[in-house]
Amino acid sequence: MNVNLRPEKYLRYLYLPNLFGAQRTKEILSVNPTIMPQREEAKEVVIHSFNYDANSVHEQRLASVSDCFPFKDSNRISWINIDGLRKAEVEAICNHYTIHPLVMEDILSISQRPKMDEVEGILFCLLNMLYFNETKQTVEQEQISIVLGKGFVISFQEDAQRDVFNPLRDRLKLNNSKARQREADYLCYSMLDLIVDNYFLVMEKLGAQIEELEEEVIRSSNKRSLARINQLRKELIVLKRNTVPVRDLLSGILRSESELLDDRTTKYFKDVYDHIVQAIDLSENYRDIMMSMQDLYVNNVNLKLNEVMKVMAIVTCLLAPATVIGGIFGMNFDTIPYLHNQYGFWIAVAVMLIIPIWMIMAFKKRGWF
Amino acid sequence: MNVNLRPEKYLRYLYLPNLFGAQRTKEILSVNPTIMPQREEAKEVVIHSFNYDANSVHEQRLASVSDCFPFKDSNRISWINIDGLRKAEVEAICNHYTIHPLVMEDILSISQRPKMDEVEGILFCLLNMLYFNETKQTVEQEQISIVLGKGFVISFQEDAQRDVFNPLRDRLKLNNSKARQREADYLCYSMLDLIVDNYFLVMEKLGAQIEELEEEVIRSSNKRSLARINQLRKELIVLKRNTVPVRDLLSGILRSESELLDDRTTKYFKDVYDHIVQAIDLSENYRDIMMSMQDLYVNNVNLKLNEVMKVMAIVTCLLAPATVIGGIFGMNFDTIPYLHNQYGFWIAVAVMLIIPIWMIMAFKKRGWF
Amino acid sequence: MNVNLRPEKYLRYLYLPNLFGAQRTKEILSVNPTIMPQREEAKEVVIHSFNYDANSVHEQRLASVSDCFPFKDSNRISWINIDGLRKAEVEAICNHYTIHPLVMEDILSISQRPKMDEVEGILFCLLNMLYFNETKQTVEQEQISIVLGKGFVISFQEDAQRDVFNPLRDRLKLNNSKARQREADYLCYSMLDLIVDNYFLVMEKLGAQIEELEEEVIRSSNKRSLARINQLRKELIVLKRNTVPVRDLLSGILRSESELLDDRTTKYFKDVYDHIVQAIDLSENYRDIMMSMQDLYVNNVNLKLNEVMKVMAIVTCLLAPATVIGGIFGMNFDTIPYLHNQYGFWIAVAVMLIIPIWMIMAFKKRGWF
Amino acid sequence: MNVNLRPEKYLRYLYLPNLFGAQRTKEILSVNPTIMPQREEAKEVVIHSFNYDANSVHEQRLASVSDCFPFKDSNRISWINIDGLRKAEVEAICNHYTIHPLVMEDILSISQRPKMDEVEGILFCLLNMLYFNETKQTVEQEQISIVLGKGFVISFQEDAQRDVFNPLRDRLKLNNSKARQREADYLCYSMLDLIVDNYFLVMEKLGAQIEELEEEVIRSSNKRSLARINQLRKELIVLKRNTVPVRDLLSGILRSESELLDDRTTKYFKDVYDHIVQAIDLSENYRDIMMSMQDLYVNNVNLKLNEVMKVMAIVTCLLAPATVIGGIFGMNFDTIPYLHNQYGFWIAVAVMLIIPIWMIMAFKKRGWF
Amino acid sequence: MNVNLRPEKYLRYLYLPNLFGAQRTKEILSVNPTIMPQREEAKEVVIHSFNYDANSVHEQRLASVSDCFPFKDSNRISWINIDGLRKAEVEAICNHYTIHPLVMEDILSISQRPKMDEVEGILFCLLNMLYFNETKQTVEQEQISIVLGKGFVISFQEDAQRDVFNPLRDRLKLNNSKARQREADYLCYSMLDLIVDNYFLVMEKLGAQIEELEEEVIRSSNKRSLARINQLRKELIVLKRNTVPVRDLLSGILRSESELLDDRTTKYFKDVYDHIVQAIDLSENYRDIMMSMQDLYVNNVNLKLNEVMKVMAIVTCLLAPATVIGGIFGMNFDTIPYLHNQYGFWIAVAVMLIIPIWMIMAFKKRGWF
Repeated sequence: MNVNLRPEKYLRYLYLPNLFGAQRTKEILSVNPTIMPQREEAKEVVIHSFNYDANSVHEQRLASVSDCFPFKDSNRISWINIDGLRKAEVEAICNHYTIHPLVMEDILSISQRPKMDEVEGILFCLLNMLYFNETKQTVEQEQISIVLGKGFVISFQEDAQRDVFNPLRDRLKLNNSKARQREADYLCYSMLDLIVDNYFLVMEKLGAQIEELEEEVIRSSNKRSLARINQLRKELIVLKRNTVPVRDLLSGILRSESELLDDRTTKYFKDVYDHIVQAIDLSENYRDIMMSMQDLYVNNVNLKLNEVMKVMAIVTCLLAPATVIGGIFGMNFDTIPYLHNQYGFWIAVAVMLIIPIWMIMAFKKRGWF
Repeated sequence: MNVNLRPEKYLRYLYLPNLFGAQRTKEILSVNPTIMPQREEAKEVVIHSFNYDANSVHEQRLASVSDCFPFKDSNRISWINIDGLRKAEVEAICNHYTIHPLVMEDILSISQRPKMDEVEGILFCLLNMLYFNETKQTVEQEQISIVLGKGFVISFQEDAQRDVFNPLRDRLKLNNSKARQREADYLCYSMLDLIVDNYFLVMEKLGAQIEELEEEVIRSSNKRSLARINQLRKELIVLKRNTVPVRDLLSGILRSESELLDDRTTKYFKDVYDHIVQAIDLSENYRDIMMSMQDLYVNNVNLKLNEVMKVMAIVTCLLAPATVIGGIFGMNFDTIPYLHNQYGFWIAVAVMLIIPIWMIMAFKKRGWF
Repeated sequence: MNVNLRPEKYLRYLYLPNLFGAQRTKEILSVNPTIMPQREEAKEVVIHSFNYDANSVHEQRLASVSDCFPFKDSNRISWINIDGLRKAEVEAICNHYTIHPLVMEDILSISQRPKMDEVEGILFCLLNMLYFNETKQTVEQEQISIVLGKGFVISFQEDAQRDVFNPLRDRLKLNNSKARQREADYLCYSMLDLIVDNYFLVMEKLGAQIEELEEEVIRSSNKRSLARINQLRKELIVLKRNTVPVRDLLSGILRSESELLDDRTTKYFKDVYDHIVQAIDLSENYRDIMMSMQDLYVNNVNLKLNEVMKVMAIVTCLLAPATVIGGIFGMNFDTIPYLHNQYGFWIAVAVMLIIPIWMIMAFKKRGWF
Repeated sequence: MNVNLRPEKYLRYLYLPNLFGAQRTKEILSVNPTIMPQREEAKEVVIHSFNYDANSVHEQRLASVSDCFPFKDSNRISWINIDGLRKAEVEAICNHYTIHPLVMEDILSISQRPKMDEVEGILFCLLNMLYFNETKQTVEQEQISIVLGKGFVISFQEDAQRDVFNPLRDRLKLNNSKARQREADYLCYSMLDLIVDNYFLVMEKLGAQIEELEEEVIRSSNKRSLARINQLRKELIVLKRNTVPVRDLLSGILRSESELLDDRTTKYFKDVYDHIVQAIDLSENYRDIMMSMQDLYVNNVNLKLNEVMKVMAIVTCLLAPATVIGGIFGMNFDTIPYLHNQYGFWIAVAVMLIIPIWMIMAFKKRGWF
Repeated sequence: MNVNLRPEKYLRYLYLPNLFGAQRTKEILSVNPTIMPQREEAKEVVIHSFNYDANSVHEQRLASVSDCFPFKDSNRISWINIDGLRKAEVEAICNHYTIHPLVMEDILSISQRPKMDEVEGILFCLLNMLYFNETKQTVEQEQISIVLGKGFVISFQEDAQRDVFNPLRDRLKLNNSKARQREADYLCYSMLDLIVDNYFLVMEKLGAQIEELEEEVIRSSNKRSLARINQLRKELIVLKRNTVPVRDLLSGILRSESELLDDRTTKYFKDVYDHIVQAIDLSENYRDIMMSMQDLYVNNVNLKLNEVMKVMAIVTCLLAPATVIGGIFGMNFDTIPYLHNQYGFWIAVAVMLIIPIWMIMAFKKRGWF
């Protein structure tokens, strides 16, 4: 590409965040689920287990992945959570719990579209946790895989640093919490509910951005506003990409006739479904508001420019007759009337004033100011 | 945000209501059904009960929520209406009438998407009453929850100040009213009918706004028109958000095979369904008209500006030859023809006049005026 | 609203019909099926009856509504047509023929969306007859309700002045007409067919308007064209509102398993269905053509204006060098070259001419003319 | 309409074909299937018959319509083709072959939407053959009706001059052609296949137009380009109107359970269906390309104009300081510095040159050239 | 076409790649599946066979097409791959394997829409392999036909030069590869998977183009950017045309109840289906980003031009008063005040400076800079 960067040239027009615009586009577009599953191996893998029934709960941080194998034969409900994805660990646990290789591939792949699958007695959900990065003002995603089996749930989180499910842990420890009374599918529901609820937090942040931007557009309509509108439209694409397929995921669960899903839990999944539908509706509204904001911006910029151009044109036009009159009496003809008249000059100057005043009045009458 | 407000700068361009624009966007966007159900507790809770059959009706204002518990075992139809939502009261009544906790959560949550649910022998409808706030010129919403059970209807209204169902009360008191002859489902229908009918009142107000705005656009095309178009588009988003899901709600009732719904009532629900479909159709029309109004506005503004610019350019252009001629005979050459001619000046001035006149004629011929 | 009308100000820009624009918007938007069924009572009610079988036909103008009661028990097919709606008459006839109160309400309500209903052994169709008002150039609608029962058809027309069904009457009087050989459902079909066929007449008028407008846009692109495009778009909204629901109405009849509908009549209803689908298709085409016409208009206006501005800018620019040269030799310096030269003046004037000519050539070479 | 044609006025802006634009709109819009089936009676009716089985084929040009009556009872497959529609002939043949009156009406009507019907043991297809008129550069259509009955196919063509089915005739005459081995439904398939294949020829012509137009837009962006884009968009409307309903027609045949359709023929109809779907896809692509071409055109025109305006503004602006300097030293004050200086004039002229040069440099630095 | 090419005229505005624009349009539009299947006969036909079961694999390059006939009766799984299409070979092999003539036609035709068919015990898939041509920056396609029969797969590739399935060959040679353990349907899945995975590679290239283009638009907004946007939009059309029908193809396979498809393979096809859905989603995102990029481009170009025009207008306007003052004191009246004043000249010049400075301040206050 022969575009040599001369920041001093364009920095006048465009604000800094925009420079990261193309970079952001790259992140959004580079989605490749199959060719290159070379996800960087996590540096650290944290394994947590919960083993509980209505009476008691047993929480443990496991040293290695093989420590969670015995839970398979437990009569109580087990929840194994893996923070950080490393091929060896994922394969070990999947093999032990007889999880289909395709599901294992999905867990390890990157940038997957949220989806739900029922494979050989297992119900598999893959979706993304969303965070709003305040610094970059972008929506970040972390892939979460949930495997629901008979009496156990295994969850995989991409990022070992942050754990999504902490609120759930607290609830599990309470003896009278509903999660403790129910089967593993209720645990799976709780996770989905937590993730979907988090979408609203992200949307709230985006909504605040839109609102702030609108205020900016209405007030100053400066040049970086369109760049920011553009940037926000990209974030809405990320949002849409993560919400619409989750609706399909949840309707898949609602339609499923898997034995793993208790009838009593259906209405809970229905509730999450209602939330995701609302999130999608809302992001449509965001989009509409963005569009009408862009219209408003373009129009405001034009109004302002037109105002300037109009005044300039009018001033130039008003002064043109004076120039002509000056020229007329500046000619070197021998006989020019009024030239030797005592008030000649004043008459000329008066005409120079009267004509623009008359023009202003004529323009005003036509509503041109 | 580093935008420092200089109202004196932008107030020239934009009319006041616009300042509230971003605030309104905030209200529209801040929809969060699950994370923060911290609805402010109502200061006041008003509980009304109706207990009736074809023969008699018994209306009562109840002091406390427990006063309505006995109605559960009544053979007559009970309608309990709660104005103002407070967690304690809602929980008490839901527990007594064995209403599912999820439904209770929905009743207490804010900004829910209208929906309908059948849970454990109960039919639950949640939708919003719409009002048009004349002062702010916005569409306001109040959440209404209706629980239809065997022999009873419980309705929850967000706002203790205003009661939606007064016309229904009057009808219930009439001995020969149809509502008295029928089961509880007819009461539920009456409520939905009342709410949907109210949508048309709001739309009429919005329609009047659109109409007024169109007149303004056609006539003066002043600068605040686009801001108002923008504002009305937001209200249409609110309208759409409250009507489209209500259609789903009603088709859900029509498809439902609940025992609570009498076959004879179906055609009444069908009637409400027809009305909501019409409301949606109509709001589509509103949208179309808004869009073509915006086109018209932008075009009118451009036409007007272009007219001004054209005239300015033409005037400037017409005077340019005179300036040149003035300049020619103002030069200090020793020998300039006609300079000593008696009529030289008049000839020059005549040429100054003839050229613009000729130009005007040429322009007119080309249709440039 | 603080817009004070100064027609002298905007009448220059916009053509008269446009003034009625907002009024038309009001008519289109003010649709309220339920709140205010205060339809103005018809001043006059004209009741016509036909009583026929294959052998004979008996036509009668009835003095009062009760005169048509005996037809209910007739073995022959009865068609009762009521022109002009008055509450008393409609209620009387509906009660006698045991028509459901909701249907009666629909008949009396205004601005209903076309729909079809099967209620208690009755098939009810409500739709609008469309007329094209040549004076106002608007699409007008008249509500027609058709009630098909066992052996009878009752039709209600809003306007007592004009009767839609005259061609049908003529056909009924012919002994060998198909309408006479068939059941009441064929009569109902004939009515729907007549109404839908009329839509095409209205569309033809609209089509002629569009065509005329396109010619105007291509030729003169004057300022009122956009206003007319805008106006026609509104009429297309009216058209769409009256055709799309009629398709649903007819597919409802086709899907219906009512005993009132003979299998042999199905293909006739299918035929009307095909026509209405074609009408909808066609109105989509109208819309497309309107949109591309608007594009063409805006572009033509811009082309024309740009042409003017370009010429003005060029002329102004061409004369600027001459002004400068005039200024140079008009300076009062003591020693200015060529000033005392005999041909000095002519050289200066020649340069004043040569520079613009050279500029014109340069501009032409770059394709700026 | 008060638009008086002054072709000398607008011919400058718009190219000739555009004049036919409104006429073309008229042709496209005037679709009226029912009110006026006054199709002009064909001047000439040509009747051809084929009577064949696997062993032999008998081709005949029939003198009158009654000559084809005996084929009804033939054991071999008969194909009767009627070129040119006249009411008498169509009625005669329809009555003899007991074709339903509604089908007969459809055959005789004009501007019908393509459709398929199964009526009383007959399968009826109506669609349009498309031709590309090279002179007018429009898509022309000819209505073709195909009636498939037990052992016979009757085809009606609008235009007696041209015959669509010639390639089919040649194939029928070959003893080993598949058409000869199969039933009448295969003949019907062959006809539909031929017609749909022809759509691609028309589309290829349209595609060539689009391509040519795009080249024109990229290169010269002259004023008639938008008119041509507009014209092509109209032809795409005609194309869409003739292809989308044909898809429905073919899926109707595929879903049909008529005894007339042999299972072995299904995959052939499926093949035609695939082709029509591809044609529809392709015409969507055409539309997309037209849209982006229009964007490109408008932008190119603007770029070009802006270039001109910018240069003009810059030139005018560059010369303004010189005018001022000339004015300054042209003033008649007694004491003006440098006026009597020997180099005063040259200094002034130098300043007149230096300022614009400095301005050019400043502008260049800001990237304004 | 009467457009004579004057490249020196338009090359200034538009960058070279654009010249190939219309050519590219031609390639995209010239899709004709049926009329002209005159695919150029391949110069070379390369036939490869694989004959394998779980235990052993036999790879062979066949000299002639008849060499692959014996595989039909083999008990092991056979894969015959034909690179390069020549009518004779395709017919020979299709006849031997009793593949329906319509399928054979499809294999030989060009520019087919991707599709799937089940014909007489055979499952047929036709789709396009996509490549990104780095030189022309276009998406190229190569038609691939896959015939899945009982115990065999025959694949046809358009281009003899490049072979798509090499990675598959390597996997087949491994004894423990899953492909070796399964039936022929797994082989078919592997092929589809390979092709769909390749789409993502192409999209990545396109994504990189978009990203690069966006950077260009943000930075320099030069004139060729819109041409490149336009060009990329065409490539997205090609992409869409090749992905959307492949989704239908795969859902067809998933819905199919063919005996050729083992239940165990279903989830693999489901996996490919998920990938293609993601590809379609992603290309929608591409489209959205392109659209908002175009908006940004147009706005940036306008901003830049407006900046220039504004400055020019302001400069011209600022100098106009000085011209007038110069004219006033250049008039030749006998009595002009200050003319003989010693400081008259300086006062005049001072006023010439003060007025523009005052104007600048006034403009600044209104925010016009």
